[in-house]
Amino acid sequence: MQSAILLIQCPDTAGIVAKLSNWVFQQGANIIRSDQYSTDPSGGQFFMRLEFYFDVAQHSIESLRDGFTALGETLKATWSIREKSDKLRMGILVSQHDHCLYDLLYHWRSQEIDADIACIISNHPDSKDIAKMHGIPFYHLPVNADTKAQQENDVLKLVQDKTDFLVLARYMQILSADFLQRYNKDIINIHHSFLPSFIGANPYRQAYERGVKIIGATAHYVTEILDDGPIIEQMVERVSHLDCPNSLKRKGKHIEKRTLLKAVAAHSEHRVIRYGNKTIVFE
Amino acid sequence: MQSAILLIQCPDTAGIVAKLSNWVFQQGANIIRSDQYSTDPSGGQFFMRLEFYFDVAQHSIESLRDGFTALGETLKATWSIREKSDKLRMGILVSQHDHCLYDLLYHWRSQEIDADIACIISNHPDSKDIAKMHGIPFYHLPVNADTKAQQENDVLKLVQDKTDFLVLARYMQILSADFLQRYNKDIINIHHSFLPSFIGANPYRQAYERGVKIIGATAHYVTEILDDGPIIEQMVERVSHLDCPNSLKRKGKHIEKRTLLKAVAAHSEHRVIRYGNKTIVFE
Amino acid sequence: MQSAILLIQCPDTAGIVAKLSNWVFQQGANIIRSDQYSTDPSGGQFFMRLEFYFDVAQHSIESLRDGFTALGETLKATWSIREKSDKLRMGILVSQHDHCLYDLLYHWRSQEIDADIACIISNHPDSKDIAKMHGIPFYHLPVNADTKAQQENDVLKLVQDKTDFLVLARYMQILSADFLQRYNKDIINIHHSFLPSFIGANPYRQAYERGVKIIGATAHYVTEILDDGPIIEQMVERVSHLDCPNSLKRKGKHIEKRTLLKAVAAHSEHRVIRYGNKTIVFE
Amino acid sequence: MQSAILLIQCPDTAGIVAKLSNWVFQQGANIIRSDQYSTDPSGGQFFMRLEFYFDVAQHSIESLRDGFTALGETLKATWSIREKSDKLRMGILVSQHDHCLYDLLYHWRSQEIDADIACIISNHPDSKDIAKMHGIPFYHLPVNADTKAQQENDVLKLVQDKTDFLVLARYMQILSADFLQRYNKDIINIHHSFLPSFIGANPYRQAYERGVKIIGATAHYVTEILDDGPIIEQMVERVSHLDCPNSLKRKGKHIEKRTLLKAVAAHSEHRVIRYGNKTIVFE
Repeated sequence: MQSAILLIQCPDTAGIVAKLSNWVFQQGANIIRSDQYSTDPSGGQFFMRLEFYFDVAQHSIESLRDGFTALGETLKATWSIREKSDKLRMGILVSQHDHCLYDLLYHWRSQEIDADIACIISNHPDSKDIAKMHGIPFYHLPVNADTKAQQENDVLKLVQDKTDFLVLARYMQILSADFLQRYNKDIINIHHSFLPSFIGANPYRQAYERGVKIIGATAHYVTEILDDGPIIEQMVERVSHLDCPNSLKRKGKHIEKRTLLKAVAAHSEHRVIRYGNKTIVFE
Repeated sequence: MQSAILLIQCPDTAGIVAKLSNWVFQQGANIIRSDQYSTDPSGGQFFMRLEFYFDVAQHSIESLRDGFTALGETLKATWSIREKSDKLRMGILVSQHDHCLYDLLYHWRSQEIDADIACIISNHPDSKDIAKMHGIPFYHLPVNADTKAQQENDVLKLVQDKTDFLVLARYMQILSADFLQRYNKDIINIHHSFLPSFIGANPYRQAYERGVKIIGATAHYVTEILDDGPIIEQMVERVSHLDCPNSLKRKGKHIEKRTLLKAVAAHSEHRVIRYGNKTIVFE
Repeated sequence: MQSAILLIQCPDTAGIVAKLSNWVFQQGANIIRSDQYSTDPSGGQFFMRLEFYFDVAQHSIESLRDGFTALGETLKATWSIREKSDKLRMGILVSQHDHCLYDLLYHWRSQEIDADIACIISNHPDSKDIAKMHGIPFYHLPVNADTKAQQENDVLKLVQDKTDFLVLARYMQILSADFLQRYNKDIINIHHSFLPSFIGANPYRQAYERGVKIIGATAHYVTEILDDGPIIEQMVERVSHLDCPNSLKRKGKHIEKRTLLKAVAAHSEHRVIRYGNKTIVFE
Repeated sequence: MQSAILLIQCPDTAGIVAKLSNWVFQQGANIIRSDQYSTDPSGGQFFMRLEFYFDVAQHSIESLRDGFTALGETLKATWSIREKSDKLRMGILVSQHDHCLYDLLYHWRSQEIDADIACIISNHPDSKDIAKMHGIPFYHLPVNADTKAQQENDVLKLVQDKTDFLVLARYMQILSADFLQRYNKDIINIHHSFLPSFIGANPYRQAYERGVKIIGATAHYVTEILDDGPIIEQMVERVSHLDCPNSLKRKGKHIEKRTLLKAVAAHSEHRVIRYGNKTIVFE
C-alpha cells in the first residue's frame, strides 16, 4: 500500500464530492484524509485535497492519473495526483540573517519538512558551514546592481531543473519579473511584517515609527508586485513602548522562522491551494 | 430549498465518504459543507458533519431520516438529521456573576447563537431584569444544602421538556448525579481555569497561589466527575506577578464569556460531536 | 488617606527618579505604584506615573500641585497631579453597531472602568433604550452631508464642558478638523483593522480581498489624519480561507470591543502618556 | 562608564524608592532602567531591579557593594550588585531531544543570551557534534538506576565551581534532593506541559487523553518537589481533535524551546527575582 494525494479545484456543482470519493473507492483505494472547501455551493469554486492509500499491485501513480483524466475533464478541473513519498525538491535562497535557514534545516533534519533540499544559494558566504554540516550543496553568488541580471541567470541555472519550488529565507534581494517568468514555479517568501502593513524595506523600523503594539510576519507566494502575493501564513507577537527597532527585530525573528516553517511544511505536504490572490490552507 | 445537517459517527471503513455523499446526491440534495475526521483510517472511528440543501417539494425531514435508516444500519452508525431552521432550545442556569449571561444574551439577540432560549434559572434574584428585558422567562430558585434535592426537582420540571440542552453560565452549584441522570441531555459548563489545572473551587485563587503566567477558561460537557467532562473549547490570557486574585478574576471574565460563547455557538450549530471523553469540533 | 496620581514627562537627566521620589517622600506620602520609561537615559525623554497615598489632614490636591510646581519647572516637565477619586468624564459617540457600547456599559456598571459617562450621542436612535437602562443621557443627532457642520456644533455643545474625553465606539462619521480643534481634548477611536493595514472604509472587506490569515482591531487617539493617530492598544484573531466578510465582521466584533475597553480603561486610569505619534502605556 | 545591576528585595516601607534612587544618584551614577513591584505598599514585600551607569574612575563594583551595605542593612534587604559585563556561567544538561539545546546555542551564538556556557552534559552521546561545533566542552555521562548517585556526583564535579546556574534543556532524569542541596544554585527546567496540568512523565500523552484544546510549556526553577518550583515563563499553542500524541509533541517543541529561551534570557539578565514559590519577572 502506498499513499497518494489528489489536489483539485473546479467550479462547484451538485454531487462533486460523491463523484470524487466514488472514483477513489472504485480504485480500491481508501481515504486517509479528505478536506474540501467551496467559495459558494451555488456557482462558486470547489477545492479538495484527498489523501488515500492505493494498492501498488493494482495501480501505479501513472495509471491513477490516466484513470482520473476523464473525470477531471468532466469537472473542468485543475488537478494533480502525487505519490506522497515523491517529495518536492526545494531550493533555499538566503542573505545574511540565517535564523530562518537554521530553523528550516533543523526541522528538515528531524523530518518535519516533507521535502528534499536541492541547494542553498546566498549572496553572502556566511551560511557555507551550516550547509556543509547538513550535506547540502551551497553556492555563493554575490550580487550588486550591475551584476543582478547575470546573478539571476546563475541562480536560474542551478534551480531550474533541480527544484520544484524556492524558499526565500530572508533573501534580501528582489527577484526580477524576468526571473519569476522564467522560473515559473512557486516561490515562498517570508516578509518581516504583518502584511499589508509595512511593505518594502525596514519593516521593523516602520513598525517602530508607527508605534504599533503588535508585530507580525507573513509567508506568501512571490508575485511580480512586491509583498503582494497570496498569503500562506501569518503570525504575530505583542510589543510595547519598551521596544526599540533592535528588540523588534529580535522578537520578530522568532515569528519569522515559525511562520516560514509552517508555510513550507504546508506547501511541501500539498496542503496549500492557490486561488487568485488567496490561498486555501488545509490544516 | 431547505438546509439540513447530518451528523454521524461509525467505525471507519473503505468507501464511507463515497456512500454518504452518494446518498446525499441521490436525494437531489447539494452539499453546502462537509467536514469529516477519522481517528484512524484502518479500524478507527469515523465522524462526519454534512450540511446540505434539499428540495422541500421532494422531501420532508422525516422522509430524509427514513431514507437514511438503512445506510445508517449498514454502517453501524450513530446519526441524526436535523433541519437547520429547527433550532435547539437552551436553558441557562446562572448564579451571581452575570458576565457570561449578559454576553450570551447579547449574541443571541444579534442572532449569533443559532438556538432558542427557553428560560433562565438562578439561585439569586439578580438577573431578573436582564431576563425580562430580553423577554425570557426567569425563575428564581434559591438553594442551600437542605433544599438542594427539592430545588433540583424544581429545575428539572422547568427544563425537562422545554430544553434540548443546558448552559451553566457560571452557575456555582454542583448538579447532583441524580439530576444529570434524570435530565440526560447535554449540559455545557464554563470552568474558570485552564483544565485540568485548578479543578474545583476558587481556581483564580489557586492560580495566584501557584504563580502561573497564563490563566485560562474551559467550556466542557458536564459529567458526574467534577470538571472532568469532554472539553469543547479553551482560551487563555497572559498574566504576570502584577496580578492579584482580583485582577485575575477580572481578566478571566473576558475569556470565560468568550470561551462559553464559542462552545454554545458550536453546540447549537451541531458542530460538536462527543466521543468518549473528547470532542470533535468542526470549525 | 487619599490616593493621587502624578503623570510627568520631561527630558531625561541624572537623578530624576531620586528627585521625584524624594518629593513624594517629603510630602509624607507613600508610593503605591511607580512606573517609568526613558527613550534614552542620555538625552532622551523621561516618562513617569506615580501613584501614592497622601494625608488629607496635611495636604489638599491643590497644595500638592502648588508644591510640585517648582520641581516641575526645574525639570522642564509637562505634568499633572490628580486625585484618584476625581474621575474623568467620558462622552460616547456611536452609530448603529452597538457591541462596543454594550460592552463599555457593562464594564462601567461593574466598575471596571474608572470614569463617569456624561452622555451617549448617536446619529441613529437605536441605542436609546440601553442608554436609558443605564441612566445615561442619550442624544439622537442625525447627520448627513448637508447638516454635518451643524450636527458637529450640536455635539460640541453637549460635550465641550461636560466631558474630559470622547470615545468613538464605532461612530461611523469622520469628525472634521474643525471639530477636533474646537474640542481639543483626547478622543479615542476603535478602528476595525490592524492599523496601518486597511485604513478607511470597509476594512473587513479589504482584509477579505487581501486574503490575510489574521485580523485585528486598533484603539487609537484621533488626529486630523484618518486612522493615523497614536495607537493605544491592538488585538488580533486568527482567520482562514473559510471566512467570508460577514464572519470576519462577527469575529472582529469580539476584538473590537475588547481592544476599545482596554484602551478606555488605561486612559481612565491615567496609564497612557501621549508622546508624538506614539503612546507609553503602563500596564 | 560601566553598567551595573542592583537587585533587591525587602519589606516595603515609605520612602524606599527615594532612598534607593538617592543612593544611586550620590554615587554619581545614572539610572538606565528601573523596575519595581510591591506585593502591598503597606506591609508587603518590595522588589526592585535598577540598572545604572557608574564611573569606573570613581568606583569599582566592590566599592559600590561596600557603599551599599549600610543601606541594605537598614532596609533588611536581600540584595546583589553585579557588573553587567560579568556574565553568569551556565551549564546545560540534555538528553536525546535536542531542539531546546539547538535553539539555546543558536541564540547564544547570536548574542541574544547574555551568559557564558561552561559545558554541555548529556546521558546520551548525540549532542557531541553540535557542542563541538560551538566550541563548548561536552561530557557524556550515561546513567541508570544503579549508577545514578555516581553519575550525579560526576555532574556535580563538573558544574559545582564552573557554573552559576544549570539549564535542564529536556534532561529526562530527575535530579535527586541530594544533588539539589549540594549544588545549591538556580536550576531552570523546561516542562513540556502547562503546569500544574500534566505533572510527570509523558505530558503530551496525558494531554491527548484528556482532550485539551490548548497545550503548553513551562519553564520553572527546580525544587525538591517534581514540577512544582517557581514558574518563570509559560507559553501555549492551540491544538484540536486532529492532533495525535505525535503532532502534539511536534507542536510542543516550538513552545518548549521558545519558553526555555525566554526564561534563560530573563535569568541571565537578572530580570527574575524568586519569592517563595513565585517569581517576579521584569520585562
